[in-house]
Amino acid sequence: MRILVDALGSDNRPTPDILGTLQAARELPDTTFAIVGPRSKIEAELAQHNTSGINITVYDAPNEILMDDKPSEVLKSKPGSSIHIGLKMLEEKQVDAFVSMGNTGAIHGIATLFAPRRIRGVRRPALTAIFNVNAHPVVFLDVGANADCRPDWMLQFAIMGDIYANSALGYTKPRIGLLSNGEEEGKGNELIRETTEMLRATALNFVGNIEPKELFLNKADVILMDGFTGNMFIKTFEASARYITSLIRDEVKRNPISMLGGALLKPAMANVKRRFDTAEVGGAPLLGVQGVVIIGHGSSTDFGVKNAIHQAHKAVSSNIVEQITEQLSKQSI
Amino acid sequence: MRILVDALGSDNRPTPDILGTLQAARELPDTTFAIVGPRSKIEAELAQHNTSGINITVYDAPNEILMDDKPSEVLKSKPGSSIHIGLKMLEEKQVDAFVSMGNTGAIHGIATLFAPRRIRGVRRPALTAIFNVNAHPVVFLDVGANADCRPDWMLQFAIMGDIYANSALGYTKPRIGLLSNGEEEGKGNELIRETTEMLRATALNFVGNIEPKELFLNKADVILMDGFTGNMFIKTFEASARYITSLIRDEVKRNPISMLGGALLKPAMANVKRRFDTAEVGGAPLLGVQGVVIIGHGSSTDFGVKNAIHQAHKAVSSNIVEQITEQLSKQSI
Repeated sequence: MRILVDALGSDNRPTPDILGTLQAARELPDTTFAIVGPRSKIEAELAQHNTSGINITVYDAPNEILMDDKPSEVLKSKPGSSIHIGLKMLEEKQVDAFVSMGNTGAIHGIATLFAPRRIRGVRRPALTAIFNVNAHPVVFLDVGANADCRPDWMLQFAIMGDIYANSALGYTKPRIGLLSNGEEEGKGNELIRETTEMLRATALNFVGNIEPKELFLNKADVILMDGFTGNMFIKTFEASARYITSLIRDEVKRNPISMLGGALLKPAMANVKRRFDTAEVGGAPLLGVQGVVIIGHGSSTDFGVKNAIHQAHKAVSSNIVEQITEQLSKQSI
Repeated sequence: MRILVDALGSDNRPTPDILGTLQAARELPDTTFAIVGPRSKIEAELAQHNTSGINITVYDAPNEILMDDKPSEVLKSKPGSSIHIGLKMLEEKQVDAFVSMGNTGAIHGIATLFAPRRIRGVRRPALTAIFNVNAHPVVFLDVGANADCRPDWMLQFAIMGDIYANSALGYTKPRIGLLSNGEEEGKGNELIRETTEMLRATALNFVGNIEPKELFLNKADVILMDGFTGNMFIKTFEASARYITSLIRDEVKRNPISMLGGALLKPAMANVKRRFDTAEVGGAPLLGVQGVVIIGHGSSTDFGVKNAIHQAHKAVSSNIVEQITEQLSKQSI
């Protein structure tokens, strides 16, 4: 297996990206690794680490895509970016997977419109996120690629999520839930009601609506949502956590006793932060394109990059792309 | 001023509802109070409290609407409910405001379809919630009445929210923000982009998109959203807070030192809980109907009921209904 990693993905590029690749290379001896980005930067970084026994090919890509670059602009303005070159190599089967912690919108746009493009029959690719819910990985999709969705796109997301949860995560008959503001059927908006009807008519293991408070209760293995709702969910979740911790910090500072309590709780709170930060698995696939594309957070450390590479390895091993291609060509929608 | 309170609103009915009314009655001597619900229950509860100097009229309503009653069914099946009778009295101007902690969907449905109905020109009434953001009350709407919204309805929500924030909350030129998944213009879904265009063409003080993480930063006085997104936001906010506190509880239990830290932090954590619980003001108006209707949480205590009554008092004093009627009859949309 050949996995290509974007050197210019993470916010602290290229160190976490390259260090994570080296770690993954030691853990996955069956795999060949390559890194794409500005050659001199990559070589300078590699020189600082122990690479003995690891064979990594470097592909040069001179243009840098930044986190706040507009996805609609970089597609044409930066044709020599690591994302363009990496995804082109994926299209040409020079590699089996492309992994990047970079600008999500740019990766989505370039993968959909330039290379490797959509799988035949796929209406819209979906961005996934994988959350560890009590040590049980759950696939969320779409978390941001498609702000306005149609029920038939949602149905395809469900099929792709089902394949991924089954093949890459190992769930038999994955439970598919639909994120809504109420558990009862009939709740939600028009999109949710129409999607529910379509899902009921399939052989998928559809378990109905899932409310936000049920997301942490292991009620489903795949949670379906439109890209706007999914993106809002993730952002609200993070904002609420930050708000609560700021309230706690305020209250701890109020008097010497609570300050002492806060000091004694430091390691426990660090664990809470770590559990929260790793609630979301390092990287997750962009489903529906003609190749394995794994996107991770810009804030990823080497650990996150390594995990994203492991997701790529699972996705390639389980023939995700071939399965989606086969399933969706059967769909008469 | 005459305020009518639903005796059967809160989850612990009728105690918090009646106790809150008695407390408000002592604080608002210019106001006459009435309670609607099953007469015997109300009288039994009143008999347990000191009501000297307070003159409260009781209106009998035999049917009980429960929290899990379907709004679509109770409209016809329970015509003698406290909500039906209370809202009918509001329509007939026997009272100036109706306050209930009851089934939100039922109140919204009965107010819209039975009495006092919509203000002429209002496309859809909007459900509001008022959050204290660093002691600064912010109006959120729509938080659940309309799961599928059109841009012209959103524009009306903005106008109604502006009137309420200005007249009842005292903000000069309230800042109107639009909840979205990204701050930049062009982010969001089609509804958000179309609403943005319409808002830009008004004299409202529109400050652009507000992301979830900015909601706690006092960037706007009115936050606009469709009912599905609003309801999801509130539910995700609550679920995230519960998830974080459960992580903290887990970690505190792990060893004697963190348990001691946890014990020392008990009062601080109780303050955090109190601040979080009171982040949302007790009650908020259903805007766009022909009378002041304040809806509070089912979980309200007597304190929450009292606050909801104060909101009713402010809304009546500031002639919200008359102002919305005047403004929306000017709208050519």
